[in-house]
Amino acid sequence: MTSQQLTQEIKNKKSFLCIGLDVDLNKIPQHLLVTEDPIFEFNKAIIDATHDLAVAYKPNTAFYEAYGIKGWISLEKTINYLNQKHPEIFTIADAKRGDIGNTSSMYAKAFLEDLAFDSVTVAPYMGKDSVEPFLAVKDKFTILLALTSNEGAFDFQTKSVEGKELYKQVIETSRTWKNAENLMYVVGATKAEYFTEIRKIIPDSFLLVPGVGAQGGSLSEVCKYGISENIGLLINSSRGIIYASAENDFAEKAREEAMKIQKEMASILN
Amino acid sequence: MTSQQLTQEIKNKKSFLCIGLDVDLNKIPQHLLVTEDPIFEFNKAIIDATHDLAVAYKPNTAFYEAYGIKGWISLEKTINYLNQKHPEIFTIADAKRGDIGNTSSMYAKAFLEDLAFDSVTVAPYMGKDSVEPFLAVKDKFTILLALTSNEGAFDFQTKSVEGKELYKQVIETSRTWKNAENLMYVVGATKAEYFTEIRKIIPDSFLLVPGVGAQGGSLSEVCKYGISENIGLLINSSRGIIYASAENDFAEKAREEAMKIQKEMASILN
Repeated sequence: MTSQQLTQEIKNKKSFLCIGLDVDLNKIPQHLLVTEDPIFEFNKAIIDATHDLAVAYKPNTAFYEAYGIKGWISLEKTINYLNQKHPEIFTIADAKRGDIGNTSSMYAKAFLEDLAFDSVTVAPYMGKDSVEPFLAVKDKFTILLALTSNEGAFDFQTKSVEGKELYKQVIETSRTWKNAENLMYVVGATKAEYFTEIRKIIPDSFLLVPGVGAQGGSLSEVCKYGISENIGLLINSSRGIIYASAENDFAEKAREEAMKIQKEMASILN
Repeated sequence: MTSQQLTQEIKNKKSFLCIGLDVDLNKIPQHLLVTEDPIFEFNKAIIDATHDLAVAYKPNTAFYEAYGIKGWISLEKTINYLNQKHPEIFTIADAKRGDIGNTSSMYAKAFLEDLAFDSVTVAPYMGKDSVEPFLAVKDKFTILLALTSNEGAFDFQTKSVEGKELYKQVIETSRTWKNAENLMYVVGATKAEYFTEIRKIIPDSFLLVPGVGAQGGSLSEVCKYGISENIGLLINSSRGIIYASAENDFAEKAREEAMKIQKEMASILN
């Protein structure tokens, strides 16, 4: 998928919602636990109920790895289901990987080629040669951690590096890397005032924005400072949607929550 | 395992060698490819041939994830084999994870509890609340990326942050985190001159040192500047040992390479 296609899809659906598929067996409806693959059954029901309201889905790999091999099978089934049934959906492996060059190539193969996600999140700490192997994969996107939504973002990311905050250094430096056009960035909604500064460096890049909902970020604030001509935003919500109910009506309630956000997005886009 | 036990094991074996189990099916002997689980068969043979010369083994998870579910089965069999057959060996999941708090907890569960590695490598970019969930696991170690062995280390890690290089800020800040006594650090052998500065901040912490061998780092230089009273070093070698031969004699040749390093270590320890 190209970023132009993603923008078109956003316009079609009047939505730039990304749904985080962070499945915790302690939080899903109990009746699913008797099925062969509760995680996949849960994801499938959520996707079936919300796919016309969201443009992207984002499984966080930690929640699958926590269940070992069973979890990886659920992840594989989930991405296959998305790719087969909804090829227009943008998929994100929220893996936050990053390693020396030959090792990053292995991760790029795993997530962008074998599992065939459209994109993968990557940590910038190890620099250029740890990120470029991801960027080298054609027609795929690397979503670099810039300014995250958690408290710990203030430990290093906002510290001044040679007169400029580290997250800005990361963004600026990354623009010089090979195939930088394949970059998107993670910018937390909990720090809406930073979007103005970020848009000065990357006016058009897509930003994946976690932190709306459970973490306290505001959709309207993020859009006020972060929206670009090509929209350029993917707003993620995980817990607020997928755990709206833990009863038999979980998918229906998830749809209601997704629709609330989609309606707000539609009014912003108009 | 405690760090005192690790030091004792180093003294017993006169070795602080860590062997990196980064298995690439294109590089292992062809006769293994007909077995049911070539990656595990390869690891088992390497472990059997070298376990008296090494104190630690470090599978890099990328090499397993690249083979999907099969890869995870191989990883699980490898760590189970190490834990059952050689409980005195220190095991490292080289995963370079790190995410917001509740997500890092899932990774900690996956690697330190379910797979029961002694330690896991973690990236520091997201700060305190992304690392503390790993540190909270009792009798386990979190190995924080400080100064890595690759070129990209100079993109951000060595940049000056408020008058001090980022990697030093990372180390110093991490000492204030809860259960900081469970921290070890990754410091690349390719930057031996930095060890003096690092030892001023953390005189006793164990350092996991990649970059000796294929990446060009020198064992004697690292020891000159990096060794502490409790030894405090785990020197990793991957390709130089495990791919010493791609023929039937691969395990024997791996042993020869490991022994060369162990002998150099024994003479340094004397």
